[in-house]
Amino acid sequence: MMVVTIIGIGLIGGSMALCLREKGLAARVIGVEANADHASRALELGIVDEILPLHEAVSKADLIVVSVPVTAATRVVAEVLNSITKQVVIDVGSTKGELCREADLSPNRGRFVATHPMWGTEFSGPEAATTNAFTGKALVICDRHKSDPDALAMVENMYRLLGMHLLNMEAGMHDIHTAYISHISHITSFALANTVLEKEREEDAIFELASAGFESTVRLAKSNADTWVPVFMQNKENVLDVLNEHITQLRKFKASLEKENWDYLRELIEHANKIKRILK
Amino acid sequence: MMVVTIIGIGLIGGSMALCLREKGLAARVIGVEANADHASRALELGIVDEILPLHEAVSKADLIVVSVPVTAATRVVAEVLNSITKQVVIDVGSTKGELCREADLSPNRGRFVATHPMWGTEFSGPEAATTNAFTGKALVICDRHKSDPDALAMVENMYRLLGMHLLNMEAGMHDIHTAYISHISHITSFALANTVLEKEREEDAIFELASAGFESTVRLAKSNADTWVPVFMQNKENVLDVLNEHITQLRKFKASLEKENWDYLRELIEHANKIKRILK
Repeated sequence: MMVVTIIGIGLIGGSMALCLREKGLAARVIGVEANADHASRALELGIVDEILPLHEAVSKADLIVVSVPVTAATRVVAEVLNSITKQVVIDVGSTKGELCREADLSPNRGRFVATHPMWGTEFSGPEAATTNAFTGKALVICDRHKSDPDALAMVENMYRLLGMHLLNMEAGMHDIHTAYISHISHITSFALANTVLEKEREEDAIFELASAGFESTVRLAKSNADTWVPVFMQNKENVLDVLNEHITQLRKFKASLEKENWDYLRELIEHANKIKRILK
Repeated sequence: MMVVTIIGIGLIGGSMALCLREKGLAARVIGVEANADHASRALELGIVDEILPLHEAVSKADLIVVSVPVTAATRVVAEVLNSITKQVVIDVGSTKGELCREADLSPNRGRFVATHPMWGTEFSGPEAATTNAFTGKALVICDRHKSDPDALAMVENMYRLLGMHLLNMEAGMHDIHTAYISHISHITSFALANTVLEKEREEDAIFELASAGFESTVRLAKSNADTWVPVFMQNKENVLDVLNEHITQLRKFKASLEKENWDYLRELIEHANKIKRILK
C-alpha cells in the first residue's frame, strides 16, 4: 500500500484517488490543490485525507500524480522531478510532446512515467470524481524506455489493477492520435453548441425537440475551458491539421447538397458507415 | 383495440408495432414491406401478425402508420389517403413540409395526422425495433388544424399512452427546427467519421485509443443512407443554412488556434458551455 499525492483534485485526479483507494492500492491520499473551494470539497467528499503544500506533499509520497491542466502540468512535473529522491511521478494529461521534452531535461527523468488514461466525462471538479472510472479503458504510456524499470513496473501494475489495458506510444505520435480521436470531437461539439445557440436567440421552442442524437453529439460541449484551452495550446498543429480535414469533409456534404448530387451524398454517408468496423 | 397497418417495418415502424401491442392498443398488426428479408424477419420476430399487399392491408386497418423513408412517405401518404374511407393515417418521418403540401391536395386530408416522434437510434431494420422507444420523448404534431377532430383525438391519445409529451408546430417551422436539432448532428457525425477514416489509412493504432467522447460524437455516423439521403433531399435549404453556420463556427475555432488567440478560444468554449442550460 502506497502513500499517494495527487496534485490537482478534479475529475481525473479525484477519480484516481477514489479508484486507488477502492482497489486497496493507496493507504493514504494527500492532495495539493490551489483552488480553496476544490480543496475543501475534496476533503468533505473523502477524496483526500489531507491537503498539504506541494513540497511537503511530495516528500511524504511514494507516488505523485500530476493531474492539473496540461500547460501547468509541464511546469509542475519538472518542478516535482527536481524535488524527489526515489519516488515515482506520473502525469495523466491529454498531450505529451511538450511535457516529455521538458521532463527529458531533468536528471530524475527515470522516475517519471508519462501516462494518459483514455477516460473522461464532460464534467469537472472534485464533485465529478467517481469510482466508475478507468475500468476497461485504454491507458497509453509514452516513451516508456525513458522510465526506470522499477518505476515503470510499479505504474503498469497499478493501472492493470485499475482494470485498464496498456498501450505504448511515442509522445509525438500520441499527440497526433489524440487530436483525431479526442480533441477534434471536443471542437465539433463546441462548434455545434454555438451553431444551435446562435439560432436559439431567434427561436426558443427549438430545444423542446432535442433528442438523444443531439445530446450525444453536443454532450462534450459542456467540457470546461480550464482543461481544454491548454490542450489546444499544446496540440495546436495537430488539431489544426485535423480541423482543416474536418472542414474539408463538411464541405463535401455541402457540395453534395448544393448540387443535389444525391449519389455523392449517399457515397459520403456509406463511407462514414465504415466507422462500424471500429465502434461497436 | 385497433387493427394497425404499418407500412415499412424498420426501426421506427417496427418499434411502433411493438409498443402499440405492449400497451394493449393494437389487437392485430399488419405489415406492408417491400424488402422480402425485412418482411420475413418482422414475422419471425413477432413484430407483425401478417404481411399483406398495400391496398388489402389498408382496407383492413383502423390506423395506418407510414414509416418509410421520407421521399417515399410523401408518395405513400397520398396514395393511402386516396384509398381509405374513414380510417386514420399518420406518418412518423423527420421532414414535414413537402409531405404536408402533398397531403393537403387530398380530399381525405382530414383523416391524416402528421407526426414526428423525436426518438431514434443509429440502427435500422426490423432487428433494431424495440419496446424501449418513445417513452419520455417529444412528439411533434404538424398542422393539427388540418386534421379531423376525431382523428386528432385518437392519435393524441395513442401517443400519450406511449408516454410521449405532445408539441404542436407548423410543418415549415418543424423542418427548420429539426435541421438544427437533429439533421446537422448527423452531418457532423458522418463528416467526423470520414475525417478519422481518412487518417486511419495511414495509421491503424489510432482506434485503440477511441474513448467514450469519440464514440458519442461519432455514434450517429452508423446511421443508414436509405433513411438519411431522403431527409437531406427534402430539407436541403434548411440543412444548408445550418451547415453554413456550423462551418462558420468551426472557422472561429480555426482562427483562434492559428492566431494563438487563447482568450478568444476560451470565449468560444465558454459560450458553448451555455448549452448546459438546455441539456441536463
